[in-house]
Amino acid sequence: MTNKCGPILLVEDNENDVFFMRRAFKRAEINNSLQVATDGQAAIDYLSGIGPFTDRHQFPLPCFILLDLKLPIKSGLEVLHWIRQQPQLRATVVVILTTSREPNDVVAAYGLGVNAFLVKPNDVSQLMQLVQALKVFWLQFNEFPYHHE
Amino acid sequence: MTNKCGPILLVEDNENDVFFMRRAFKRAEINNSLQVATDGQAAIDYLSGIGPFTDRHQFPLPCFILLDLKLPIKSGLEVLHWIRQQPQLRATVVVILTTSREPNDVVAAYGLGVNAFLVKPNDVSQLMQLVQALKVFWLQFNEFPYHHE
Repeated sequence: MTNKCGPILLVEDNENDVFFMRRAFKRAEINNSLQVATDGQAAIDYLSGIGPFTDRHQFPLPCFILLDLKLPIKSGLEVLHWIRQQPQLRATVVVILTTSREPNDVVAAYGLGVNAFLVKPNDVSQLMQLVQALKVFWLQFNEFPYHHE
Repeated sequence: MTNKCGPILLVEDNENDVFFMRRAFKRAEINNSLQVATDGQAAIDYLSGIGPFTDRHQFPLPCFILLDLKLPIKSGLEVLHWIRQQPQLRATVVVILTTSREPNDVVAAYGLGVNAFLVKPNDVSQLMQLVQALKVFWLQFNEFPYHHE
């Protein structure tokens, strides 16, 4: 399925995680493209449309963001904080996807206004279930406040 | 399944909608209890633990809130605005569940920091799918910043 709200932006520095996520998106038949930013500053550059991301046709604003926490240069919490301070971006749906369920991280993320918080599954079958849940809840049922293409 | 984060608080003035939601929760085998507030002020009283809701054992803080928009006394947006201003409650997950997909309502809800926005389905089969999606995404995968019982 394609949802007209745009691509999904995965902010993830681990190449293996990106690989398995691409595969899971494909198997779940999510047709929204998966864009990847490999550190926190790259995510901010993507969302700002600067540096390598100036072409909005090639790098459209995302439907939602899957944001890791432990990232090079700028952390996921720094990226989330930045997003919520930008008038044009603050309503963007941000879902944390991280290895840790450290209570301090969960509290901090909700304190900064995250939409949801997921822990990366350890195996491929659980990852497929998580991606399927993302697809059904966010792409089939949720209404977004924007309609990027 | 029971999730240790507490009951789900449904803020809904339409008795039929409450009836069908209770049935869908039962069919989806969601064991978190479903608490109901029938207007916006009752929702605030429930969350504040005042009036008929002083007994926290009987009326525990919710895991998440399903919030209608068009409500007597205080609207859903007023309730959401109030929640986000309470230091003890501001991180509570709030999902709008309303009949309208009016873009102004969607934009206003995200502007006030809603977690997600759902439109009430027209038929029972779609409602079951929506409740199933709520269960899988929020009760099986999402991490909450609190652990109410």
